[in-house]
Amino acid sequence: MKYKIYTRTGDKGKTRLGGGQAVSKNAKRVEAYGEIDNLNSWFGLVQSKVDIGEDVKADIALIQQFLFDCSTDLSIPKGYREYKMTKEHIVWLESRIDNYSEEPEETQYFIIPGGTELAGWFHILRTTTRNAERRIVDFLEEEPEEVNPFVLQFINRLSDYLFILARVANARKGVPDVPYERSEKVFR
Amino acid sequence: MKYKIYTRTGDKGKTRLGGGQAVSKNAKRVEAYGEIDNLNSWFGLVQSKVDIGEDVKADIALIQQFLFDCSTDLSIPKGYREYKMTKEHIVWLESRIDNYSEEPEETQYFIIPGGTELAGWFHILRTTTRNAERRIVDFLEEEPEEVNPFVLQFINRLSDYLFILARVANARKGVPDVPYERSEKVFR
Amino acid sequence: MKYKIYTRTGDKGKTRLGGGQAVSKNAKRVEAYGEIDNLNSWFGLVQSKVDIGEDVKADIALIQQFLFDCSTDLSIPKGYREYKMTKEHIVWLESRIDNYSEEPEETQYFIIPGGTELAGWFHILRTTTRNAERRIVDFLEEEPEEVNPFVLQFINRLSDYLFILARVANARKGVPDVPYERSEKVFR
Ligand code: B12
Ligand code: B12
Ligand code: B12
Ligand SMILES: C[C@H]1O[C@@H](n2cnc3c(N)ncnc32)[C@H](O)[C@@H]1O
Ligand SMILES: C[C@H]1O[C@@H](n2cnc3c(N)ncnc32)[C@H](O)[C@@H]1O
Ligand SMILES: C[C@H]1O[C@@H](n2cnc3c(N)ncnc32)[C@H](O)[C@@H]1O
Ligand SMILES: [Mg+2]
Ligand SMILES: [Mg+2]
Ligand SMILES: [Mg+2]
Repeated sequence: MKYKIYTRTGDKGKTRLGGGQAVSKNAKRVEAYGEIDNLNSWFGLVQSKVDIGEDVKADIALIQQFLFDCSTDLSIPKGYREYKMTKEHIVWLESRIDNYSEEPEETQYFIIPGGTELAGWFHILRTTTRNAERRIVDFLEEEPEEVNPFVLQFINRLSDYLFILARVANARKGVPDVPYERSEKVFR
Repeated sequence: MKYKIYTRTGDKGKTRLGGGQAVSKNAKRVEAYGEIDNLNSWFGLVQSKVDIGEDVKADIALIQQFLFDCSTDLSIPKGYREYKMTKEHIVWLESRIDNYSEEPEETQYFIIPGGTELAGWFHILRTTTRNAERRIVDFLEEEPEEVNPFVLQFINRLSDYLFILARVANARKGVPDVPYERSEKVFR
Repeated sequence: MKYKIYTRTGDKGKTRLGGGQAVSKNAKRVEAYGEIDNLNSWFGLVQSKVDIGEDVKADIALIQQFLFDCSTDLSIPKGYREYKMTKEHIVWLESRIDNYSEEPEETQYFIIPGGTELAGWFHILRTTTRNAERRIVDFLEEEPEEVNPFVLQFINRLSDYLFILARVANARKGVPDVPYERSEKVFR
């Protein structure tokens, strides 16, 4: 590559947003899109490990593009340009959840993360998504106007999607989920 | 599954504790049990990779149940119901550490994480556990009465257990640990 | 090992720095070196998976030693002893970046993390490094005098190095990077 990837401009803890505004690297906004970038990296890894069907692979390819859209929306000051995430992304994700929800056996008990390796990965994506959600909420509480509400909805729904996929990953391999022994009946 | 996993109630950054109290998703309590949930997911993955003996596999199965107990204790307001984590959990974990401590060769120097893949995973569990510990301490400093002290002890001891297991994973495969070259004599 | 790894002294959320000063486990300084320790664990895992050449393996072995140096520098109060990280570490890392930058094809667009499994791992190291950077910035903003500036520079440059390595990992296997479809021309 002819350009230099490193610019040395961020060596003292400051950086720039989309649009050019200077901020600290630990600004809540940067934290939020940094965690989406991180989540996207994890999806990139798990994508390379999916062995339970093309439907799941296709979903993840789309989700990775949408996560980049989420980080774009989070990186620009409101009104700088149109948001990319919309109601339709939520509708799509809910339809995917409904689709997979038929597959695993019903349970009323919390499930111990694990089983097949791939199920383990989906649980990790699930909790990593929930971490990103908390960092978006940090930013939302500081600047409520600056968060596209569809980003937050998408990320909230995504962790439920991943819970179902973790169960599907085990179900498709015939591996039973391990219940949390002292669980109450929590799902209904 | 006949129920819908998604309820849409958490789309704006608020959620509920065990017991039903409304809180922000970024409350320190939620952060603490969210990080235990995350740690438990990592254990679920590593469980699927353990190839150094049934003793280790059996430990992890128990630890995953106990981590769920930890998150239960953290998710309910004090007095709502009896805590699940007790002194006995600590005694058990210390006995497991003592048991494994015989295996690796003695060292006085810090160790570079790695060696076999599994040793790498145990170091990751170790630092992920220490991250969860810091989030519990955040919550403890805000509401000292709300943290079951055995949860914090268990998590503190767990990271030492994982350090030993990382060393055992290398030792059982005959792979030497790599010392940190500029280490002082820190272990004694 | 004859010594006991657990001392029980940290069971209530307090610990000690290098030098002996007592602090809370959630102090920004501890957070910063804790995240470097975590990053180092991830490098330990990825090291065991590198299959694209001895040059990369040799780099990582060095980087792991340097990361330990970073955490040493972060763990001691200024002036307690000489810092380990210097300008030379930055020069070395930039020369490694320049070296690898020739390999991947030029692109102007953001890249979706993933491709080969190893590329996925380098993207994860990249975003984990950026997370550690943010935690060092937290500490820097609280106590500007206490952060060795070469630690921050090294960590900033390290994430750019890892971006290039992710691309190299795909290039060496002949796997094309997937562009972010709605990307502007961002690299130039
Ligand atoms: C704490 C908690 C967690 C913790 C678990 C920690 C732990 N060990 O407890 C963590 C963070 C790990 C977690 C994760 C998840 N959780 Co959760 N969780 C809860 C929460 C807040 C409490 C669970 C609990 O212990 N309940 C037992 C006691 C404490 O409940 P309680 O409040 O005292 O009493 C309730 C019941 O008694 C009930 N009740 C009252 N009267 C009656 C009468 C009858 C007949 C019945 C049946 C019930 C009933 O209502 C009371 C008030 O809610 C519940 C919400 C809730 N209050 O139940 C959600 C809840 C169970 N979780 C939910 C979900 C979706 C999940 C996740 C899938 C989220 C995700 N995408 O990752 C994961 C699954 C994890 C897994 N591995 O299985 C949903 C389930 C939705 C559904 N369709 O059933 C709930 C209901 C929250 C919600 N959205 O409303 N969770
Ligand atoms: C910073 C630190 C870390 C950092 C390391 C960063 C770095 N590169 O330095 C991180 C976070 C990575 C870390 C991790 C761990 N650490 Co640590 N760490 C420390 C700490 C605070 C300083 C280490 C150091 O650099 N020491 C060198 C200099 C700075 O020490 P000093 O304070 O100036 O001087 C001491 C010595 O000179 C000694 N001393 C004084 N006079 C004399 C005389 C003689 C004859 C001798 C021998 C010594 C001696 O006492 C002084 C005061 O403590 C020590 C505690 C400590 N103060 O030593 C724990 C310590 C070494 N860590 C400890 C542990 C358990 C760990 C972990 C296993 C924890 C875990 N579960 O993950 C891991 C292991 C990591 C690995 N990969 O090997 C324990 C070891 C317990 C033991 N049985 O020996 C210690 C002692 C803390 C404790 N619990 O009391 N650690
Ligand atoms: C937000 C952001 C991110 C987000 C992306 C989120 C998203 N979906 O947008 C995240 C955190 C993921 C990210 C990651 C990375 N990023 Co980034 N990122 C940015 C940032 C701030 C905005 C990108 C963007 O959307 N630009 C489009 C719009 C919003 O830009 P704009 O500001 O409105 O307008 C600019 C252009 O129009 C340009 N311009 C103006 N007039 C003209 C005229 C002409 C002719 C041209 C060509 C341009 C031009 O200047 C304007 C002001 O900067 C840019 C800096 C920047 N401002 O471009 C860095 C930037 C593109 N990133 C950079 C880098 C290095 C990276 C990483 C490699 C860092 C790393 N080590 O991980 C990764 C790569 C990730 C990947 N997978 O590919 C560098 C690229 C350096 C270079 N040599 O080109 C930049 C330029 C920052 C810098 N250091 O200066 N990034
Ligand atoms: C299932 C339970 O998980 C908790 N919860 C909801 N959202 C998050 C999040 N982003 N991170 C951690 N925990 C969360 C709430 O307590 C909810 O009721
Ligand atoms: C071994 C050293 O690690 C540090 N330490 C103790 N607990 C934690 C934690 N949860 N996270 C990060 N660092 C920690 C202290 O400085 C201790 O002395
Ligand atoms: C490429 C873009 O990534 C953002 N950026 C810079 N440093 C970090 C970091 N440590 N974590 C997350 N995002 C960061 C800035 O917005 C920069 O312009
Ligand atoms: Mg939710
Ligand atoms: Mg400890
Ligand atoms: Mg940078």
